[in-house]
Amino acid sequence: MIRIGDSGEFSKTITESDVYTFAGVSGDFNRIHIDAEAAKDTVFKERIAHGFLVGSLISTVIGTKMPGEGAIYLKQSMSFCKPVFIGDTCKAIVTVDEIINESKGIYRLTTKVFNQNKDEVIDGYAIIKYTSKGDN
Amino acid sequence: MIRIGDSGEFSKTITESDVYTFAGVSGDFNRIHIDAEAAKDTVFKERIAHGFLVGSLISTVIGTKMPGEGAIYLKQSMSFCKPVFIGDTCKAIVTVDEIINESKGIYRLTTKVFNQNKDEVIDGYAIIKYTSKGDN
Repeated sequence: MIRIGDSGEFSKTITESDVYTFAGVSGDFNRIHIDAEAAKDTVFKERIAHGFLVGSLISTVIGTKMPGEGAIYLKQSMSFCKPVFIGDTCKAIVTVDEIINESKGIYRLTTKVFNQNKDEVIDGYAIIKYTSKGDN
Repeated sequence: MIRIGDSGEFSKTITESDVYTFAGVSGDFNRIHIDAEAAKDTVFKERIAHGFLVGSLISTVIGTKMPGEGAIYLKQSMSFCKPVFIGDTCKAIVTVDEIINESKGIYRLTTKVFNQNKDEVIDGYAIIKYTSKGDN
């Protein structure tokens, strides 16, 4: 049973290895992520993590914690509020916000990611389908 | 100069290695992605790729092709229309949809991902900031 206000979280330090591995898997070798010298000439002044790498922590909460196995991802909306740098520790927090259709198991979740300074780096929401484990 | 209708694309076969590497980087070890036996008992009947892994191809287009370097990701919204299985070949297509504020360099892009059967697997849009290379 999912109730409004239920929540789960997952935190992880975003390492240099994560960023380079993510570049290799996704194909996104934009220099802002992988070239420390080129990054100096940008507004960020240093390499930043891919937004989708940081956002994937939201997926981790939904897929493993809230609600976890059986969840089917229907939608994700993300606003990238602040950059995440290599070495930042990010915490994704997912909270049930609205029961859209209980019989069909459709829920809206707020999905936020914060850095170690409690700055919000991603704000957004997800829509998921969740009936019960194994039923999906 | 970015014009409405400008577009770019990137395609990639999603491998088993990609899915397992993405699980390791994100922390999302939901069995639907990594346990072939458990996946048989789901509606999908086999392991599926993480939605964020597939969605990352959109980021690759934006970060490396359309518009490429200098783009700053402000927002991404994605609807996950169909599952992506290991071995599927996905193509992300990004098209400039709206010039929100040309002087500030704010653009809206449609962001779609298709599989090898031309089924849409992700539908959505992005908002980006892009002035010119190096200015950001």
